[in-house]
Amino acid sequence: MVNIKLTIQYDGTSYCGWQKQKNGNSIQEEIERAIKLITGERVNLIGSGRTDSGVHAKGQVANFLTDSNIPVDRFKFALNSKLPRDISIIDSRRVDEKFHSRFDAIRKRYQYIIYNKKIRNPLYRNFAYHVPYFLNYKEMEEATKYFLGSHDFSSFMASNSNVKTTIRTIYTFTIKRTGDLIIFSIEGNGFLYNMVRIIIGTLVEIGSGKLKSDSIPYIIHSKNREAAGYTAPPEGLYLEKVFY
Amino acid sequence: MVNIKLTIQYDGTSYCGWQKQKNGNSIQEEIERAIKLITGERVNLIGSGRTDSGVHAKGQVANFLTDSNIPVDRFKFALNSKLPRDISIIDSRRVDEKFHSRFDAIRKRYQYIIYNKKIRNPLYRNFAYHVPYFLNYKEMEEATKYFLGSHDFSSFMASNSNVKTTIRTIYTFTIKRTGDLIIFSIEGNGFLYNMVRIIIGTLVEIGSGKLKSDSIPYIIHSKNREAAGYTAPPEGLYLEKVFY
Repeated sequence: MVNIKLTIQYDGTSYCGWQKQKNGNSIQEEIERAIKLITGERVNLIGSGRTDSGVHAKGQVANFLTDSNIPVDRFKFALNSKLPRDISIIDSRRVDEKFHSRFDAIRKRYQYIIYNKKIRNPLYRNFAYHVPYFLNYKEMEEATKYFLGSHDFSSFMASNSNVKTTIRTIYTFTIKRTGDLIIFSIEGNGFLYNMVRIIIGTLVEIGSGKLKSDSIPYIIHSKNREAAGYTAPPEGLYLEKVFY
Repeated sequence: MVNIKLTIQYDGTSYCGWQKQKNGNSIQEEIERAIKLITGERVNLIGSGRTDSGVHAKGQVANFLTDSNIPVDRFKFALNSKLPRDISIIDSRRVDEKFHSRFDAIRKRYQYIIYNKKIRNPLYRNFAYHVPYFLNYKEMEEATKYFLGSHDFSSFMASNSNVKTTIRTIYTFTIKRTGDLIIFSIEGNGFLYNMVRIIIGTLVEIGSGKLKSDSIPYIIHSKNREAAGYTAPPEGLYLEKVFY
């Protein structure tokens, strides 16, 4: 048995998300189908974590065990020839048989892109969140620093989640403006369900003046989902990199 | 009668192109339909020029005559509420009744984007031309200068075209590398059918070593479509701006 690690990019627009589901096409399923086509094996593809419908990836990671003797660096080309055009394997390599994409991930980086202009841009419609009103960049930048470090992020978790601990550590959180785009980059040891999107929704409420940047510590302390902002939509979110 | 000038952005992926056609949806048709919905009028929307299926626009221009008394700056919002998400009107203004989008255009700027990396990127699949092999940037840049000025561009015109004159003037032609993208920007007083795409196809042949950069003057002089390179695909092409 060989353990193969894949690095994957996808446009999540047409999928129900990473994870297999009864209704709707998943990215996991598409890749398992492609693996079956080239190896004849029905494998269980383990992803580093789920992404929701409409969320994209520039560097999702997954692994699977195989008996196939296809040279491992050829796997990416073989799989790409069987995959739809909105999914691409950018790297395939052999890893230790104990490697597990989810359990061994020590850090993840997400990107979130806002298109900040009065009128929508059709070229970004599936790839950035359109915010048509003025956003105070300075205030949002000011707010990012409160997220750094280890905190109980219950306020920034979808309310129906079920996890052992809600404490997470954020290492970096940057914001950059280029033209009409505002690009956030956030790196942490892990993220709760919808955490990035709720953080962004909260920052947009800060940028629009509904909340103050220094309210973040209170929102964190409240451990109350209601205290934070809304959940920003999926189309602006990218899983950029998983670290091991 | 009021003459209204629209500035339009679109993702051309799902359309047969700008121009109305028997088979397939056109951008012109979609906008005429939206105008009908808000004014009740069946207008003839005049575009600055056609774009092919799959070609995008960041600043296409079109105009139409109307008796409607909707305030002209509200037109963009009213139309956007009726248009599909892959088309957007970013500006609407009243112009002189003699203004004609096509005849009065004095200059146009196109952008062409190449994604130059071995493995395809699903996020760019409809928005950049994927060239998976090495391109010599210096050689391509060297080649761009030969296009500047007034030339008979017959060699760079789709062979079934029918025009009065094949002489066009190129004012600027730049090339820029950002990450894995190569972005060309070309501005001229007009472009023959498929001219930008044939120029880019020829530059790719120069970048890959099939042609030399200093062969461009000979290709132009030959006035022979066969002498130039292939027609680069539509997904990398953007009509960026029309000047009046």
